[in-house]
Amino acid sequence: MTEPESNTLIYHVDGELVPADEASVNVADRGFLYGDAAFETMRAYGGEIFAWDAHANRLQETCSVLELPHGLTDDDLYGRITDLLAANELSEAYVRLSITRGVQPGKLTPDEAVDPTVVVIVKPLPRGGSDGQPVYDGPATLQTVKTKRVPDSAIPTQAKTHNYLNGVLARLELRVSDADEAIMVDTDGHAAEGATSNLFFVRDNALRTPSLAVPVLPGITRGVVLDIAEQEGIPIEEGRYTPDEIRNADEVFLTNSTWEIRPVAVVDGIQVGGDAANQGDDNDTAAATQSPAGPVTTLLSRLFAARIDREHYD
Amino acid sequence: MTEPESNTLIYHVDGELVPADEASVNVADRGFLYGDAAFETMRAYGGEIFAWDAHANRLQETCSVLELPHGLTDDDLYGRITDLLAANELSEAYVRLSITRGVQPGKLTPDEAVDPTVVVIVKPLPRGGSDGQPVYDGPATLQTVKTKRVPDSAIPTQAKTHNYLNGVLARLELRVSDADEAIMVDTDGHAAEGATSNLFFVRDNALRTPSLAVPVLPGITRGVVLDIAEQEGIPIEEGRYTPDEIRNADEVFLTNSTWEIRPVAVVDGIQVGGDAANQGDDNDTAAATQSPAGPVTTLLSRLFAARIDREHYD
Repeated sequence: MTEPESNTLIYHVDGELVPADEASVNVADRGFLYGDAAFETMRAYGGEIFAWDAHANRLQETCSVLELPHGLTDDDLYGRITDLLAANELSEAYVRLSITRGVQPGKLTPDEAVDPTVVVIVKPLPRGGSDGQPVYDGPATLQTVKTKRVPDSAIPTQAKTHNYLNGVLARLELRVSDADEAIMVDTDGHAAEGATSNLFFVRDNALRTPSLAVPVLPGITRGVVLDIAEQEGIPIEEGRYTPDEIRNADEVFLTNSTWEIRPVAVVDGIQVGGDAANQGDDNDTAAATQSPAGPVTTLLSRLFAARIDREHYD
Repeated sequence: MTEPESNTLIYHVDGELVPADEASVNVADRGFLYGDAAFETMRAYGGEIFAWDAHANRLQETCSVLELPHGLTDDDLYGRITDLLAANELSEAYVRLSITRGVQPGKLTPDEAVDPTVVVIVKPLPRGGSDGQPVYDGPATLQTVKTKRVPDSAIPTQAKTHNYLNGVLARLELRVSDADEAIMVDTDGHAAEGATSNLFFVRDNALRTPSLAVPVLPGITRGVVLDIAEQEGIPIEEGRYTPDEIRNADEVFLTNSTWEIRPVAVVDGIQVGGDAANQGDDNDTAAATQSPAGPVTTLLSRLFAARIDREHYD
């Protein structure tokens, strides 16, 4: 076991502030033994968690699926996060909050009484958006993988848990390609999501994304983007799509809390918006040829950055 | 986080013998963050691991699926287990060996270079079988659950990993019934396995078990039982079965390393072998009415115990 990447950071484990390299859970913790744990990945902007209410609600939903009554209030959890940000003197940060079922007698069936283990990890993450640089290296290259998204009937899709091997296996498939995110399809062949991101595309000026009826994690950033698009009057369609429809889209982008809105340049070896670039000659098309962020993606990114400005820095 | 159930035990973590309540992994370990880890559950009889070669092979298979090149030899791993048994002065024990991908930089895509975390946990487990008491409380009651077995296309079924929520969710469904093990069906409705056990039944004097073409973990005890049955000349069929065929079987039993062979008395509220008990009046049928372990189950249990005797105590 190597040391964590930063020895100078402090983590929050079970109510204590501890140096990252000493932050640990017992090997009998169910979060370790079975991945029996809920988590949220968040961004702090200006010292406050973006869309905290939505994250807190989804965490509750995950714990409800897992029948994990942790007994902690949202305010308690938020307090641990802000205490940890303060201890690390961080205002712009990546934050990961995990709640496990803790240590229980050694059998798979969980006890009803839960003494949870609560872990908060932070890392510095400078703000992107209107005032900064995006955290990703560049536009994403997507590759449809063979690993299918776990169906809702096996593990409810709305639960964000430490059982993350499905996404790990999808990412392992990318070792043989240049892609940096997977398109995972469901067992019926519909595009679901990336390993750590939700999938959006634009066709005929409408914003389209796999519906929550497909096994798709209801991403918090996904929800914010849909909200912004609705407010802006952009037509929205949530549906079932084949990977071929993504390949032939005018624009494609990914969302998650870390990337916010990340443009996609290539899908399965095909340049996004390639047809439009060949057909048109107006300014928008010229811009699309130079940059993978088409007009709808660019507009949504600007509005997303403006919302962060308004909520965190005004 | 409560303390582990026994403070007197010693565990093996990353090459060190440590008291159980101090045995921990870093919170940035991928085994904790993502359940990105392989494991084996084993029995020690007379100080030696039963069917070690089979466990070592399956562990290799899991690590191959996870592309987790841990670099440790089977002899190294076996040495850690025997050192730990000796440190705890245990010869009859439950043993759990886990290998995680360790701590890596904070992104989902695994690095190719792996510095694994190796954890061995032991607990006293007196031998059952010919000389002792079974470790289970009594014959099992089974209940078919709604949670479907994760399909092979999402996570390869032969991999035994720390992503165990599928089984946890199945067990949570049993809270509303008196059952102590689930029958999980696949997404096509075929009986696959229990949450921690393989499923066998007897009909028309043939031993039947879901084929590995159904999403079924290739249990080591399952393999030993099939081997014993074949040597004994018992007809064997590996196939696809509905839960209804299990309910109507003459005998039903479960296998895993801890339970060995565990008879099943009731499936979905229906007494196993009930029809036979009502129809017949010979000694076998009378015995089946008194005890859920029918003749084939009883024979296989005796032969299984004899194999342990021969391999571990002669």
